[in-house]
Amino acid sequence: MPVQQSTDALLREFEEHHPRALARAISLAEAGSAGPLIRQVYERTGRAMTIGLTGPPGVGKSTLSSALVRKARSLGKTVGVISVDPSSPFSHGALLGDRIRLAEHFLDPDVFIRSMASHGHLGGLSGASADAVLLMDAFGLDIVFIETVGVGQSEIEIARLAQTTLVALQPGSGDSIQVLKAGIMEIADIFVVNKADHPMAGQLRREIRSMMEMLDFSGWVPELVATQALDGTGINELWGAIEAHVAYLNESGEIEERRREAFVQQVHQLVLGRLERRLARSISQVALCAGIDPYAAAEGVLRQFGAGEESDDAALPVGRPRAAVKGLA
Amino acid sequence: MPVQQSTDALLREFEEHHPRALARAISLAEAGSAGPLIRQVYERTGRAMTIGLTGPPGVGKSTLSSALVRKARSLGKTVGVISVDPSSPFSHGALLGDRIRLAEHFLDPDVFIRSMASHGHLGGLSGASADAVLLMDAFGLDIVFIETVGVGQSEIEIARLAQTTLVALQPGSGDSIQVLKAGIMEIADIFVVNKADHPMAGQLRREIRSMMEMLDFSGWVPELVATQALDGTGINELWGAIEAHVAYLNESGEIEERRREAFVQQVHQLVLGRLERRLARSISQVALCAGIDPYAAAEGVLRQFGAGEESDDAALPVGRPRAAVKGLA
Repeated sequence: MPVQQSTDALLREFEEHHPRALARAISLAEAGSAGPLIRQVYERTGRAMTIGLTGPPGVGKSTLSSALVRKARSLGKTVGVISVDPSSPFSHGALLGDRIRLAEHFLDPDVFIRSMASHGHLGGLSGASADAVLLMDAFGLDIVFIETVGVGQSEIEIARLAQTTLVALQPGSGDSIQVLKAGIMEIADIFVVNKADHPMAGQLRREIRSMMEMLDFSGWVPELVATQALDGTGINELWGAIEAHVAYLNESGEIEERRREAFVQQVHQLVLGRLERRLARSISQVALCAGIDPYAAAEGVLRQFGAGEESDDAALPVGRPRAAVKGLA
Repeated sequence: MPVQQSTDALLREFEEHHPRALARAISLAEAGSAGPLIRQVYERTGRAMTIGLTGPPGVGKSTLSSALVRKARSLGKTVGVISVDPSSPFSHGALLGDRIRLAEHFLDPDVFIRSMASHGHLGGLSGASADAVLLMDAFGLDIVFIETVGVGQSEIEIARLAQTTLVALQPGSGDSIQVLKAGIMEIADIFVVNKADHPMAGQLRREIRSMMEMLDFSGWVPELVATQALDGTGINELWGAIEAHVAYLNESGEIEERRREAFVQQVHQLVLGRLERRLARSISQVALCAGIDPYAAAEGVLRQFGAGEESDDAALPVGRPRAAVKGLA
């Protein structure tokens, strides 16, 4: 069985701490084939500090990531960066741009940078990103940054794989409100107002504060930090806010809840990916029957999954794991 | 059984063409309870012209919608508008703004405008929007516009419920490339460069044209129309492009493929919604077992759905129905 041999060989290299083994493991994750390896290394996970970074295009996420990596390296930490890009035939240029911004870290053997692109299905990308976080964690990296491009629902889910989520916004972009509308207000542990020398920076901070007043926070109240990532202004304050959040998670015990949410989210994606493949086959058969209405077709497909007419199931929210876990607890 | 009585009464009002019956039916769709009614009226669907409109915030989608509604009314057509907004505690203001832009049509009894907001799960919103399109179609409206806010993956799926998809972009926004990256390049039947009097309008048109050269089109090649929706400039040309696309769909027979894609997409969402509810329960049980890795947990959950170890299933793409259907044909 060459696949098994290959996993064993990879596992050996992974344990001997060869960076190429981590690179190959993450490629397996992108192909949806990292399961056997992850099962072998899973017990070594749970030690890395995981930090998500999301925000609209143009806000300077890569520059922020780069500054945070520099800070982490100055503290002697080993670092992984997962840069997640939505599917597009045009993504290569952007990824190249991002890579250039992170280029100062390319020659540092203790910084492992990996771009992951979706191949048409963001659900799959969320699963692959979750695998990549586990692999970097098991590999022994101290800090894993998960940087997403854009603010779609799936990218929010990816950012929530992290224990601490940073939401970066830029002044004067005009779409800060629209961005906040997309549901990211609720996932931010720390707001970063980047390009803080912009004349509209003060207004953006006031907007964020007034919107925060509209929400109820139990426990941690999001911090707001102003940065100029390009020259490093505010990065020490941002790092302090991250450490404060991590301390809060540990002292309150909420860290366990976050880990469980990430776990539930990953299992959900794994199961859903498998079910969706079966689903596509089932629907293709049903769709060939002319004249049938979609509800009748759905019933027919559901019977193949052992699920018939709707029962009085509680309609649990899914796809927003934090809420789901609270509902289940 | 009061629910059954209620559906019967609603069906009677729906057939008697009371607008409040359509409003109530769409509310049922939002609650995920429109199934019984849709099964009764489904045979009357398939007559409406359905037009999707998507694009980044601020591009002027509501103004465009309003201008297109005006055009359709001048041709004596009855019109439905479904305005889909992503989940957010801040969406009410924006919806109000959209409504104000469409206000000129509020008193027209032959224009039915409905905003739909997601309650935390865009998959559900896609299903509810599909129901709303079917209901407006069965109600006898000639044209149904589906307008989405933002350009997330789920909103793209919603836009693809339509036979003709317009993608609106604004000059000088700086994020046209980023927007195109999000995967909407491939879904556009017609590009609309709105605010065409903007000094950067020419550049945006060149950008769109050069990106179109990077893609292969079989059959319809997207048209590019410049508009100033506020004063109506270009709306006749845009309408002409829509009619040309509809004529192409009918002459080529591709209209049947589009209908089948919308059908498959809706069945997919219906089945997935049901499975996800069962999934949330199953995962909550498994997640309580400490020390288990996510792949083992996923296997445990999948066994409850009658699906065990991965077989040699073809990995069919899902969530991008057009591609999926082509693969299945």
